[in-house]
Formats: sequence, structure tokens, C-alpha cells
Amino acid sequence: MDKKELQNLLEQVAGGQVKPEDALLQIKTEPYKEMGFAKLDTHRGIRQGMAEVIYGAGKTKEQILKIAQAMVEEREKTVLITRMSKEAAEYVGASLDLHYDDLSRTGIVGQIPKPDGVGKIVVATGGTSDMPVAEEAALTAQVYGNEVVRLYDVGVAGMHRLMDHIEDIMSARVIVAIAGMEGALASVIGGMADCPVIAVPTSVGYGANFGGLSALLSMLNSCASGISVVNIDNGFGAGYLASMINHLEGRKE
Amino acid sequence: MDKKELQNLLEQVAGGQVKPEDALLQIKTEPYKEMGFAKLDTHRGIRQGMAEVIYGAGKTKEQILKIAQAMVEEREKTVLITRMSKEAAEYVGASLDLHYDDLSRTGIVGQIPKPDGVGKIVVATGGTSDMPVAEEAALTAQVYGNEVVRLYDVGVAGMHRLMDHIEDIMSARVIVAIAGMEGALASVIGGMADCPVIAVPTSVGYGANFGGLSALLSMLNSCASGISVVNIDNGFGAGYLASMINHLEGRKE
Amino acid sequence: MDKKELQNLLEQVAGGQVKPEDALLQIKTEPYKEMGFAKLDTHRGIRQGMAEVIYGAGKTKEQILKIAQAMVEEREKTVLITRMSKEAAEYVGASLDLHYDDLSRTGIVGQIPKPDGVGKIVVATGGTSDMPVAEEAALTAQVYGNEVVRLYDVGVAGMHRLMDHIEDIMSARVIVAIAGMEGALASVIGGMADCPVIAVPTSVGYGANFGGLSALLSMLNSCASGISVVNIDNGFGAGYLASMINHLEGRKE
Amino acid sequence: MDKKELQNLLEQVAGGQVKPEDALLQIKTEPYKEMGFAKLDTHRGIRQGMAEVIYGAGKTKEQILKIAQAMVEEREKTVLITRMSKEAAEYVGASLDLHYDDLSRTGIVGQIPKPDGVGKIVVATGGTSDMPVAEEAALTAQVYGNEVVRLYDVGVAGMHRLMDHIEDIMSARVIVAIAGMEGALASVIGGMADCPVIAVPTSVGYGANFGGLSALLSMLNSCASGISVVNIDNGFGAGYLASMINHLEGRKE
Amino acid sequence: MDKKELQNLLEQVAGGQVKPEDALLQIKTEPYKEMGFAKLDTHRGIRQGMAEVIYGAGKTKEQILKIAQAMVEEREKTVLITRMSKEAAEYVGASLDLHYDDLSRTGIVGQIPKPDGVGKIVVATGGTSDMPVAEEAALTAQVYGNEVVRLYDVGVAGMHRLMDHIEDIMSARVIVAIAGMEGALASVIGGMADCPVIAVPTSVGYGANFGGLSALLSMLNSCASGISVVNIDNGFGAGYLASMINHLEGRKE
Amino acid sequence: MDKKELQNLLEQVAGGQVKPEDALLQIKTEPYKEMGFAKLDTHRGIRQGMAEVIYGAGKTKEQILKIAQAMVEEREKTVLITRMSKEAAEYVGASLDLHYDDLSRTGIVGQIPKPDGVGKIVVATGGTSDMPVAEEAALTAQVYGNEVVRLYDVGVAGMHRLMDHIEDIMSARVIVAIAGMEGALASVIGGMADCPVIAVPTSVGYGANFGGLSALLSMLNSCASGISVVNIDNGFGAGYLASMINHLEGRKE
Amino acid sequence: MDKKELQNLLEQVAGGQVKPEDALLQIKTEPYKEMGFAKLDTHRGIRQGMAEVIYGAGKTKEQILKIAQAMVEEREKTVLITRMSKEAAEYVGASLDLHYDDLSRTGIVGQIPKPDGVGKIVVATGGTSDMPVAEEAALTAQVYGNEVVRLYDVGVAGMHRLMDHIEDIMSARVIVAIAGMEGALASVIGGMADCPVIAVPTSVGYGANFGGLSALLSMLNSCASGISVVNIDNGFGAGYLASMINHLEGRKE
Amino acid sequence: MDKKELQNLLEQVAGGQVKPEDALLQIKTEPYKEMGFAKLDTHRGIRQGMAEVIYGAGKTKEQILKIAQAMVEEREKTVLITRMSKEAAEYVGASLDLHYDDLSRTGIVGQIPKPDGVGKIVVATGGTSDMPVAEEAALTAQVYGNEVVRLYDVGVAGMHRLMDHIEDIMSARVIVAIAGMEGALASVIGGMADCPVIAVPTSVGYGANFGGLSALLSMLNSCASGISVVNIDNGFGAGYLASMINHLEGRKE
Repeated sequence: MDKKELQNLLEQVAGGQVKPEDALLQIKTEPYKEMGFAKLDTHRGIRQGMAEVIYGAGKTKEQILKIAQAMVEEREKTVLITRMSKEAAEYVGASLDLHYDDLSRTGIVGQIPKPDGVGKIVVATGGTSDMPVAEEAALTAQVYGNEVVRLYDVGVAGMHRLMDHIEDIMSARVIVAIAGMEGALASVIGGMADCPVIAVPTSVGYGANFGGLSALLSMLNSCASGISVVNIDNGFGAGYLASMINHLEGRKE
Repeated sequence: MDKKELQNLLEQVAGGQVKPEDALLQIKTEPYKEMGFAKLDTHRGIRQGMAEVIYGAGKTKEQILKIAQAMVEEREKTVLITRMSKEAAEYVGASLDLHYDDLSRTGIVGQIPKPDGVGKIVVATGGTSDMPVAEEAALTAQVYGNEVVRLYDVGVAGMHRLMDHIEDIMSARVIVAIAGMEGALASVIGGMADCPVIAVPTSVGYGANFGGLSALLSMLNSCASGISVVNIDNGFGAGYLASMINHLEGRKE
Repeated sequence: MDKKELQNLLEQVAGGQVKPEDALLQIKTEPYKEMGFAKLDTHRGIRQGMAEVIYGAGKTKEQILKIAQAMVEEREKTVLITRMSKEAAEYVGASLDLHYDDLSRTGIVGQIPKPDGVGKIVVATGGTSDMPVAEEAALTAQVYGNEVVRLYDVGVAGMHRLMDHIEDIMSARVIVAIAGMEGALASVIGGMADCPVIAVPTSVGYGANFGGLSALLSMLNSCASGISVVNIDNGFGAGYLASMINHLEGRKE
Repeated sequence: MDKKELQNLLEQVAGGQVKPEDALLQIKTEPYKEMGFAKLDTHRGIRQGMAEVIYGAGKTKEQILKIAQAMVEEREKTVLITRMSKEAAEYVGASLDLHYDDLSRTGIVGQIPKPDGVGKIVVATGGTSDMPVAEEAALTAQVYGNEVVRLYDVGVAGMHRLMDHIEDIMSARVIVAIAGMEGALASVIGGMADCPVIAVPTSVGYGANFGGLSALLSMLNSCASGISVVNIDNGFGAGYLASMINHLEGRKE
Repeated sequence: MDKKELQNLLEQVAGGQVKPEDALLQIKTEPYKEMGFAKLDTHRGIRQGMAEVIYGAGKTKEQILKIAQAMVEEREKTVLITRMSKEAAEYVGASLDLHYDDLSRTGIVGQIPKPDGVGKIVVATGGTSDMPVAEEAALTAQVYGNEVVRLYDVGVAGMHRLMDHIEDIMSARVIVAIAGMEGALASVIGGMADCPVIAVPTSVGYGANFGGLSALLSMLNSCASGISVVNIDNGFGAGYLASMINHLEGRKE
Repeated sequence: MDKKELQNLLEQVAGGQVKPEDALLQIKTEPYKEMGFAKLDTHRGIRQGMAEVIYGAGKTKEQILKIAQAMVEEREKTVLITRMSKEAAEYVGASLDLHYDDLSRTGIVGQIPKPDGVGKIVVATGGTSDMPVAEEAALTAQVYGNEVVRLYDVGVAGMHRLMDHIEDIMSARVIVAIAGMEGALASVIGGMADCPVIAVPTSVGYGANFGGLSALLSMLNSCASGISVVNIDNGFGAGYLASMINHLEGRKE
Repeated sequence: MDKKELQNLLEQVAGGQVKPEDALLQIKTEPYKEMGFAKLDTHRGIRQGMAEVIYGAGKTKEQILKIAQAMVEEREKTVLITRMSKEAAEYVGASLDLHYDDLSRTGIVGQIPKPDGVGKIVVATGGTSDMPVAEEAALTAQVYGNEVVRLYDVGVAGMHRLMDHIEDIMSARVIVAIAGMEGALASVIGGMADCPVIAVPTSVGYGANFGGLSALLSMLNSCASGISVVNIDNGFGAGYLASMINHLEGRKE
Repeated sequence: MDKKELQNLLEQVAGGQVKPEDALLQIKTEPYKEMGFAKLDTHRGIRQGMAEVIYGAGKTKEQILKIAQAMVEEREKTVLITRMSKEAAEYVGASLDLHYDDLSRTGIVGQIPKPDGVGKIVVATGGTSDMPVAEEAALTAQVYGNEVVRLYDVGVAGMHRLMDHIEDIMSARVIVAIAGMEGALASVIGGMADCPVIAVPTSVGYGANFGGLSALLSMLNSCASGISVVNIDNGFGAGYLASMINHLEGRKE
């Protein structure tokens, strides 16, 4: 409500066309209404670039199919479905052209787009058991248009394997480092790379890992720089953020 | 010797201006740590771009002065000193040209460089008491060559203040969102912006905030996308990562 | 025998319609627990206004039916059954006129009374997965005689949806704000509304939400005023308290 | 300009006593934050009814004085200053008419207004050591225009003392129950009263109370109904919410 | 061989009824564990007074039967089996005279002995859902020869019910107070009684009770005196300790 | 209010001598009032046997003196003051005949009474640093009339020292086992003794003892029988409970 | 790259045989590559002495068989498979010569080698329910060539049983002490033995053991010397480390 | 008491020389007494090899001097004093020949013995701020007769520095790996070395390191083999255990 509109309103009050209490409500709520919200909500309907996403956990297979069909009809884009049960995949796959990844329980309706990011995203894991989270991150990044280099099972207990891929690490634009247990991979990669590192703690492990807490704390306390952390097992969040960073354009000249 | 300097040296060798044996000496006298490893360790001696950094906590004023002097003499770059006591600042300031910021306890020796990042970094806080952490982040970003927009005290309990700055939020290249207590600022900003958001939980608050745990968990669980989290009160880490992202160049054509 | 019934009885004694010895018998046959103690214990047998409640968790279907039948026979009031399994609902429904809500696993025997509260209760959720808890709160409020406005999936990651309902927020007498993950909804609503806000953390989420702890701490640390918190997933408690506040009468003139 | 003042202004416009252009000027000179946003942010500048509040923690005595003076000059209302050190009180008291309460470290500039709430607020504590938090709650409630009944040291280890005040409990409109250690007071009061109970855990105790965690968890898990909880030691928040509930008007006929 | 049996044996040696070498054999064939160490280990083979106990959790039905048969044959005493599945009960019941309590999953082989304790043990619970733990405690106490008074569902949310049994509380020799959720029952009883109170937190509840932690902390922090706490859900431990206290004899004159 | 009194009241209502609303209030509040509370509150004014107790923590020296003087004048009994600073001791000692124990910061006004318990109380500690808590327990027990045997520094890392006192352990009527760090002492003693063992975890230690949590959890999980636990560092509570058990009389013949 | 190689490289740059940018890459990545990593990663393919190990958890039976077959073919060594389900054991056993231990869910393909360690490894447990973890440790140690002495169910609640085996304790070269609940066994053994003690907390227990946390903290805080701790339930890790210590050779003369 | 002694005792009972009750006592207490405890308690009086140790924390300077003098007089060995304040060092140094290390607050009376261990102990730290704990470990190891190689500030954020010392890592007999923050050093070293690694988490760091918890959990969850963990900041314990392992002799031929 700009100065003029406010003046009009007040004159309508003075003229009796608008009641004071109605004007009161209008003035009180106006500022909120005029906010220009830029972005829709995540993980339930992101629509950036070319992909839509459905967070499958807690949804019935019928709900997933219905939402996916609506998205497909409306916009003909790729639809990413995370945390989707095998049963739901079979159900949805009967009606739509679905590619389903067992390991990460991720479904993709439509084509994975041609990569259009600036560089490459490296997705690295400490162990093989971190792969489900890694694939969720990698597929998310691919669906959002990124070239992804997978470095799996390169944890610090066998660091030579990580070293074999030093060029990938050194030439990445952004790295997603995924590890459970002691989560040291993020620090080690952060100590070598000079690009942003997104650390994903996983709940892989047992005993004093307390559902991923050990890796989470380890990553938050990393003494290497350029590292930030997302929620435990949040492969989607890491893949999405990595894509966002990989699509940042340079200076306009 | 950073990557660029090493490249220059090698080109001078190729061009005959520098003899191999002299280059050898130069490389070897800064063994390993100067050999082009992308990065030294954080918070104790990063040397990317034009700045050096000293992590002041746990160091005596004499130690800080000595390290700073060595850095200044050797390379004549800007030196950033974080977590520096007022007493140390006075001691160092007697010998070196130090600018000291009381609030964040940050010292800077030398000139803050002209910004050379791609866009602007917004540093936002929920309340005035988060400002010490915010200034550590903002000064770090400035020292690494970034233009910084400060939006302080724009927490969700008075969201109209945040809305007054919606253009800053929408046009940032990267945002550092700093909040204690319930840490909701990161989610709200993450729900509006479409650039990477680095969330910094602070230990500000009392009772069930448990030294920053409430804000930390809140930020990790944010349902907005594009958010990642650094350690509680880690303004430096956020500023450094923001600078790294803000200096990412676009595609080479 | 509730407060009102006891008062009626005593007035009938005073008026001569009921003999003291008959009143004595009536009072004594419901020893202590029926004697006007303001309230029986919660979640197992509240009898305020017109509703009875049975906390279904941990009870067999036979127990639930038996208790419900006794309540129905004795007083012919509405009976609310929370945390009731589908199996129990089918069993009870065979003998009694039961309305069962799958989502919140809440059963209602008898009619939902006509609202007699002072204003409206807004029940808002951050996401769709918070709806089971929200429906428990909303149905509880309805059974206790309140008009309920449901605002579901208005979380901070898509704040425009919340803004679309700003009039509901601004005109509510009491708001129940339900959210899992980072629990920011309570703070955002608390920052806009000027009525009491009852925050309900939910266990929705994964990883570092630690069964609802993240939302709980976030809500307890809210820097907005007028907010208080109930137990994780405690929709009943929030609906009951909201009803209590909504039935507070104004000053007697 | 609070809600009531804005309403008055609009009615004067409607009635012709104030010209629209003058009203426009008045509204615009207090841009946004004075425009009827239901509420400013808590603990740093609430202006509902007749009081202003300054959250003293983390502010210098000079800052407190300056803010208080601005408030006093501008509006001549009562100013409440919470978490104020004795030293700050002496400094502010030299320039302003300050009443300072040592126990709760609360300062009040100006007169405590005549109570205008609907009923009485009972503030009860488990022990004498909970009194600082209780006085913060009680003084907050008084400053916002409430009649307060103090029941201190009525904890469950000596329940006869609580019983001596059963009439106060039964006739309260809202109760603030404050306790450290095992926090049982809230449940016991909640089991007796039939009005809303705001529970405040305190950090009083030692050993396994873990800074108030024991009382917090106890209160959140209370099996009595009508109870909600605020942050540990948050007397202000409880007093403010109690006042809000106590000022709720009844139905408009 | 308990202390008494060893004494008898030695007296028979002294009196010539038993030859030293026979006594030697008898003592040595039950090496160490039978030699008068006051007590064997708990929950797996206590033999005080007249009962044996088998901790059923983690044992197969075959193992339980085998151990129970050995105990029965050898000594013809009562055998208590805790945490015994229904299936195991049916299996054991086919071979031995077993009384099985469904609620607490406790089995008893043989007769419950006539009470020979000094006074009565009161076992009180906050709610009906604490009854499984309570029955484990009560049956344990009975098997060890105690008269038990059960006061179930007398929690603080409906304190009148507790009050109906004030004489039982006041005349008990030792009280076992069992409660989940906020665990206030122990404090309230501890504030009334002047005998030892053994508090048993239960894992009953949901949300922020964190598997019994809320009740545990509450009980440990009780400000009433004469209270001590055993592990969460440890009905056996409480019943055993209560029996031990109830069998303490007075001074010998 | 018994049947007769209620009948009288109702007849007075019928006769018009008592108004229905007055009768209502009388009936509602009576049951609470008629409770015969047996005991005053702990740690602030216990008056069992011959001692009074003042919990010194959080009280000024003037308050302590005033309370102590009132107690002395009124009843001429022994007064126990726990958690009393040296400064307060000097202040109180100037006016009253005070014995002050530096180690446990316990003060005693008046004579320690002649022991009149049934047996002996053993107070055992794992290390010398647990002695402050132990002395609080031991002095409390002595003040309440018990003979105390002190076994200090008999922790499991040097078990021979514990073994040297096996007779004391075997002949105690009740044992207070005090230990920090791993808290194993309680289990070891519980495995040897056949009397009640009250375990007191202490906050002694560093690192992962987390303020006594390690010893607390260890003691709660003890697999020995007859053990119960009080709060961390709660020497008073243990001494009081031990005295209560030691004064239990045997059967009356 | 030693001094000479670097000199050569630089001369090749000077001579034009190597381009500066190639030299740059070679210098940057070389140091990592030349590391002589000594050991592969644990629990997924250790190859020290004569055994291979497969961590079975999270692997399908087909994967386990395939890995095991490859190992057997390649090297003809013993293969240890930990955390292997019964179902997987049956599947693998159909193709390979597998010995499967039900209790610890450990499979062994091939012969257990003749012990070649320096001394004996004692594996002791507090209770019978700790035996699965103990057998994992013991079988691991045997597979790596150690003589193992099993002392099961020697917990502190019945310490005489531990004492029966004092000679084993005193003559061990290294002891693995395994206990759940209060974890006191490690301290007691550590107080008696003068060899390294590896403590393994187990998740055995209930209530406040919090999945092994109680035993873990207890063991970390042990006041006995020579003790170190591995992860909860990590029998393999303890057995492996014990073997490593037991194979340390003495001084070479 | 062996078989023969027991036989003698029984014959004395038979012969009347020993009363049955005396025999009873003798039999009951004997087994505990005859234990040959091998070792005194740690950290308060270890006497293995040539050194004595005093744990200085919580002891007055006078106590420390007195204990140290007694040790020196009695045995003329080296005395190690850990956690000793500077003030205490000055006081003790006035009477005894004390070497005091400021950094680790460790004092040594007498000569550090000539190393007599089998190999070398490497003490490595992640950062310079871990050095106090490292020096406690290193000096402890030296006092017990070990050759120590110090590798300080070789954390994973600058791994080249660790690589410079790969030979030390590879040739150590036992390694003490000390790190705060994310504690990754232990895993990285554990992944390279093939000797036992003792990990020491330190409380160095801030925010979500929670007093060392992050490093502790990280180390416990290490996926490298051969690692075990001691308490946070427990340099002494690590040094002692390292010495124990380094003094293990090889097989006797």
C-alpha cells in the first residue's frame, strides 16, 4: 500500500464509504500481503529449472501417482520422486514412464536433462553403505541438470583409494562428501579441495553413532574450511544445493 | 606461494628468466605447504586470494604479533585475526597498522581489498545480539574481497523488518543467515531466496537453547531448500565459504 | 457430576425440590471423584462441558468399547476417543454410533456439539505430514464446542501460503501452530498474531530432528511472545487448552 | 501507535475530527513498525496496552538508559526493563524514576497501571529459590495491567501449604506455575484447577537437573490437562502470555 | 547353601553328626558361590528367603524350563520368572505348576509364601498404563514374603484418588511409587509419607518423555526426602529392595 | 467431611441457613483440606527425630543465621546446615555454637545426638575426591542419630582396600556407596552386601563424565540387587534415607 | 618426488620438453600419490596375517557369497564374516565350507589357524547376554591366530565367579572386557590385571542404559589404568586390536 | 584357603578347637582376602617400573608436596605429578628438585629414566591447541621409560604435514592420536599405520563440539581398525597405556 492508496483509503473512511474497523484490518494486514515471495517450497514442489520433486515418504502410492500425473500433464517436465517405496514405484510405473533406482529409492518420471551447469559435481562416500544417500544426491543433481562424478567407498580408512581420484577432487566445482560413522571424509576432502564442500552425515553405523549424530558433530566441527553441513541422510538437500552452486553464473560483462 | 605464483615461476623457467636451480630452491624452501596444495589449513593460515588469517583464540598476544609480523613482512598482504582479545589488539596495534572491531573481536592488518566477487553477500541476523558473529562473518567476507550487505535484527518475530529488505534478499548471490534461539531466520530466508543460504546458529539465548543446540537443530531440519549449516558461532567459516561461492566464475566460453 | 450439576442439585435442595437425604445419596454414590473436583484426570476421563474422552493407546478394543458404552449409557454425552487403532474403531463401531477419522486415528461417539466458544480457533500446520496431529487437535476442539479454522501446509518454506490466510491469523482468538522439522511456523505466526499461540512440535522429519526434539527446542526458544508449548505430537492437549481459552468469558458487569 | 490508537484515529477520521491528510501524516511518520503490525518483537519492544519493555541482558547501562529515555519522552508510558543488573539500575535510576526489584533484577520506569484484566493471575512457585523467576513473571503481569496473587514456596514436598490456598487456585483465571528440580507443581496445580496453567521450568537445582532440563521434561509430559510450557527461567514470557489470556474479552452481544 | 545351612552344617560337624570330610565335600562341590557369600547375582539366581528368580528376557523357553526344573528339584522353593513371554509361559506351564500374570509377564512356580515381613508394602502407580511394571514389583514382593497393598491409577492429575488412600500411605513400611510421563507421583507421595519411597520411572508416555527419561530425571530431582530411584521399568528391582527393607528386623534386646 | 457433616450441610441448605453457592465451595475444597499431611518439606525444615535442617545454598548468611536462631530458640534441637559457605559459617559461628566441616561445607549447631538407630550405616567412597559428598552424607546420618562407619577411597581400581573392610560391609544395616567417574563401587558393594545400598553418583571427574552423568547411569543400570540411587552429589538425601531405614523398627509382638 | 626428480622436471620445463601447465599439475598432485599407504581398510577387507574379513551387515547373501568366493579363490585364506544373518549363512554354506556361529552371527570359511600370538587373550563378559559380542571378539581373535580364554558371566554382581579365574586374569597378555548395563567389569578387571584391557560396552540392558551409553560412559571414565574403549557392541574391533597387541614382538637382539 | 586348609579348619571344628561361628566367619570372608591383587590404583599411586604418579587436580599444594616427599624418601624413584597448577609447582619446587612443564601442567621430580621400551611411541596431534594433552601423554610415556616422537599440528585439514612424517607413523610400535573438533586424525592415522592406535579426544573447539563429545564419538565410530579410545583430555591414561603396550615383551624361547 503506497502513500496514495493509503490516502484514498483514509478519504473513504472520512467519506463513510469504508468503516473504520475495515480500514483497520486492511492497514494491519497489507504489509504482509505485498511481500513478493520468490520461491515455492522445497521437497514438495520445487520448480526451478526443469524438474519437479515429490517427497515420497509418508505419502500413499495413490497420492504419489496423482501428484505426479498432475505435474506431468501440466508442465511436461521431469519429475523426481524421493524416498519412494518399491511398491509405490511399481504402482506408479504402471501408469507413467518411471525410472526407479532401488538403492536410493528414487524415482524419475521423464528424461534426465542434458547437463547445463558450469562444472562438475563430485559425489563422494566413505563406504559402500553410504551409497543410498549418495545416489539420492547424485540423481537429484542429474535431474537438475548437472554432470556428476561418483567416487564411492573412498573413506579415510583406505585413503589410497581417495588419492587415486585426486584430479577429480581438485577439478570439481562443488563436492558432496557423504559419510557415516566418524564422518572424517568431509574434513579430509575439505583439506584438499578448494571448492565448496557440502557434507552429508549418514545414519550408517551402530552403537555410539547414535543415528548419525557422530558424523554430524564431526562434520560441523571440521577444522577444514569451505565446508557446510546438511541434515543426516539428506541426499536430496545436498544434491539440490550443489546444483544451485553449480549453476551460479559468473560476472556479467 | 599460491597456484598462480607457481604457474608464473614455471613460465619464467620455461621462458629462461629463471634458472631451474633457482626455481628448485624457491620451491623447496617452502616445502610442501607452499607447493600448490590448493589450500593450507583453515583458521590458522589460509592464504587464498589476498588475505592471511590467524585464529587468535588460545594464542598469546606475543604469539599473534609475531605471526602477523612474519606474514606482513613476507608477503605484504592483508592479515585477518579472529577471536582476538582487546588486550591483544592493543598490543599488536602498537607495532602494526591494525584495525580492530570490538564487537566481533576481529582485527585486520592492512587494507581491506577492493571487492572482486561476482555478486553481493548478504549477512542477516535475527537479533542484535547475534551481531558479534555476524561481524566476524562480514569482515571475513570483506577481507576476502566481497561486497557485503548487512541486514541486522530482521528476525521472524518482527518480520516486517525483513520484508523491508526483500530486494537485498532477492538479489544476493549468497546469504549468510545468523540466528540464535529458535533459528527460524534461516528457514524464512531460505523460503524466499533462490541462492545458497549458509546458516550460522549462535549460542545466543538461555534455558533450553543449550548453548546453541536449539538453533543448530532447527537449521539442520529446515524444510526450505538450498540451506546448509556451519558450526555454532562460526562466523569466520560462513564468511569464508560465502566468499568462495561468490568468487566462483561462470562457464568458460 | 460436574460443577454445574452439583450447583443445580444444591439449588434444588435449597428450593425444596430435592430432599437433603436424596441429595446425600446422590453425592455419596459418586464418591470423591464426582464431588465437584474441578476436573478429573486428562486423556482418560475429562468431563468438562459436554464431552468425555478416552485415551485409546494401550487399551484393548474390548476395554475401549466397555468404557465408551458406560459413558454413553450414563450421561448421553459425546465421547472422544484418541489414539484409536482402525481395528478398534471397527470393533467399537459395530456396537456404537462411531465417527472415525483415519488420519488422526480419532473416534467420536455421538454428535459434535454446536460451537459455543467466544471466537475461532485456528489450527495451522507447517506441512501435510503434520496433519494427523492437527486433526487430533481440531477434532478435540470441535468436540469441546469450538469453531475451528484449518490452515494446513502453510509452513515457512512457502510463506505466501501463510500470507493468503493473514485475516484468519489476525482474527483468531487462539491459534494452535503445529510443525515438525525446524518448527519455525510457531515463531512466524507468533510474530504476526496478537492472540495466544499454542505450539505443538511433531515428530515428523528424519535425521537430526531426533523424534521431534528439534521442533520442540525451536518452539521453546521462540523469540516471539505469547507462545507456549505442549508435548511432541500432543494434538489432544493443544485442542483441549485452546478450547479452555476460547471458552473464557469476559468480565461480568 | 498501538492497535487501539490506530482504531481511535480511524474513528476520528470517520467522525470528521481528523482530516485524512493529517491522519496520513501521522501514520506515515511512524513507518511500518508503527503501522499496526499487531505486535513488535518481544522482549525488545512490545507495546501492547500501556507498557514498553526492554530486554536488559547483553545491553550496556548506557544503551538501556538511552532506549528508556526515548520511550519515556515519546509516549510517557510505563517501561519494563528485564534482566537488568544492579549496576545498570543505579545508573538508570540517577536519570529516571526507576523502581528496581533486586530479586528478579527487574526495573520499572513510571507507574504500574491499575489492573484492567478480566480476573486474577496466580503466580505460584515450588520453592523460595524459584522466586526470582516468579517475580519477573508477576511484575510483568502487573505492568501489563493485571491483579496478581503470589503463592510462593507451595511445592509438592509440603503440599499442605498449597492446600491452604486452594481457593486462590480454584478462582484464578490463569495460573503461572513455576518450579525447578522435578517440576511437579505444574501437574499438581493442573490436576486441581480448571483454568489455563502456564508452566515455567527453572534452572534451580543441581546434579541431574541439567540446567532445568528435568523440570522442562516433567512439565511437557504432564498428564494433567490445560498445561503448556515456556522456556526455562522465562518469567517474562509467562507473565506476558498470562496477561494476554487475562485480557481476552468475552463474546460480543 | 545359604548362610543358615552352612551354619547348620558346621554345627553338625561340631556335634559329630557330620564328619569333616563329608562337610568338606559338601562345601567344595558348591564352590565359592555356595560358600556363604551373602548373595548371588540378581535377576539370574537370587536365593534369599524362599524364592529363586530367573530373568526371562533373552532366554529361550527351553532354557527357562531347564533352569526352573533344576531349581525346583534341588530345593523345592518358589521360583519367580520375570519378563517371560506368553509363549514361554505356555511351554513351561506344560511341565511345571506355573502361575502366569499376563500384564507383567511374570511367572511363578510353586506357592507364594505367607508374608513374613515387618509391615506392608504399598505399590502405587500414576496411571493404569504403569500397571505392568507395578505388577512385576508387587508379585516380586509377594514371592519374597510380603503383604502388598496396590494403589493403582492414583496419579497427580486426579489427586483426590490418592487422597482416598491416605491411610495406606501413612501406615506403609515402604512404598514403591511407579510413574511415567512427568513422574510427579513419587514427589507427592514422598511429601506425605514418612517411610522410604522407592521410585520407579516407567517408559510410559510419548514425545518428550524420551523412553522414560522425563520421569527418571523428575524422580532424581525430587525435592521430597526419603526417595531413591531404580532403573526405568525396573519393577523387579523395586520389589526386591522393598522386600529387603520390609524384612529388616529391629534392635536385638 | 464425613457422611454426617455432609448431611448437616445439606440440611442447612434445605433450611436456608447456608446458601447453595457456599455449600458448593465447601464441598469442592473440603477433601483437600482434611488431609493429614504427615511431614513437612525436606531440606528446608525437616523435623523428624531431633534435628532441623537448613539448605544453605542460595541463602545469604544473614538468612541462614536468622532461620537457625529461630529454630534454636523454638525447639532447642540440633540444627544441620548443608551447602554452607565458609563465609556464612564464620558469620553464623559468631552468634551460635557452630561446628563447621570445611570439606563438605556442612555446619552443625548444637550437639550431635547419641546414636539410636538399629545398626550401623557404612558410608563408602570410590576415591578421596568423593569425600565432600560422603561427609555430607555421614554428618547428616550422625545428626539424625546414627552410628556411621566411614570407608573412604575403597574404589574398584584398588579393590584390596575394599576387601580389607569386608566385615564392615557384611555387617552394615544400610550402606551409602558414593562414587564419581565410572561409579562401579555401588555395583561391587551391591554384589557383596545383603542390605540396602543407597548409591550416590558424584560429579567428580572430567571429560566424558558429563557432570556426573556417567556415574549416575552406571548406578541406575547396576546389575546387583538392593541398590537404589539418589541425585548426583546428594549426600544429604542419602544420609537422610539411610537414617530412615536404620531407624525402622522390627515387628511389634 | 624427491629433490632430484623435481630438478629434472624443472630442467625439462626450461628445456621446453615439458609445458609449464603440465609441470604444475605434476607438482600439485604428486605428494599425495607417493604416499606408501600401509594398510587397506578394515572390516571390509583387512588382509593382515592369514585372514580376510567381510562385514556382513547391510550386504545381501548373494553379495557376501560373491565376495567370499573371490577371496577364497584368490588367496586361499581363512575368511571371517561378521554380522551375518542365519539366512545368509545357509545360502553361503551351500557353496562354501562355512562354519557358522549362531550366537554371534559370525561365519568362518576355511580353517581357524594355529595360534601364533605371544600370549593368551582373555575374553570376559559381565553376563550371559553379553556373549554374542564376546563370541564375535573371541572368534575374530582366533581367526587372526590367537589362543583365547573365555570367562563368561563373571560380572561384578557375583564377583566370586571372577575370583575363581584370577590366574587367567593375571597371566593374560591382553584382556577384552565386555559388559552392558553398568559396565563395571572393565574397571574391576583393570584394577586387578597389569596388561592392556580393551573394554567393549554392549547395548544389553534396558531403561536408562540408553542403547549402551551407560556402559560406554562408565568404561571411558574408568579410574583404573591401562583401559581403552571401542564402540558399543564392537566385538570385531576388540578382537582385532587384541590380536594386534598379542602379535607385537619383543625387542630384537 | 585351599582344600587342605579348609579340611584342617573343619577338623578343628569337629575337634572343638574352633567354634562353628568362628569357622563360619572365616569361610565367608576368606575368598575375598586371599586375592592377589596385582596392582595398586592408577593416577593416585601407580608403582610399576620406576615411576610414581600423583594426580594433582583437587589436591592442595601442601598435600602434593607431602605425598611427593614421602614417595621420594621411601623409594627414590621418579615422581610424576599431573594436572598441577603453576602455584603448586612453585611451592613444591622450593623443596624438591622439580621439572615443571607449563603447557601440560605436568611436574616431574627426579630423573626421566633411560628408555627401555621395545620401540617408539608416536604422539601426534591435530592442532597446536591439542598440545597440552599431548605433552601430558608424552611426558607420562617418557617417565615410564619410553622413547617418544612428537608429531604436533598434523591434522587432516593440512594433510601434507602428516605425510611429511609417514616414516614415523609406519615405524611406530604404538601411536597416541590426539585431536579435538572433528577428531578425524585418529581415523586417518589408523588407516595408515599397522600398530595399535590410542585415540584421545580433546575438549578443544567450540560450539557443537560439546566439550569434546564430537571428537569422542568420531573416534569411537572410526572405521579404521586397531583403534581404541580413552576419556576426553586423558593424556595420562593414553601415555600410560602406550607405555604398557611398548613394554610388552615378545615370546619366550
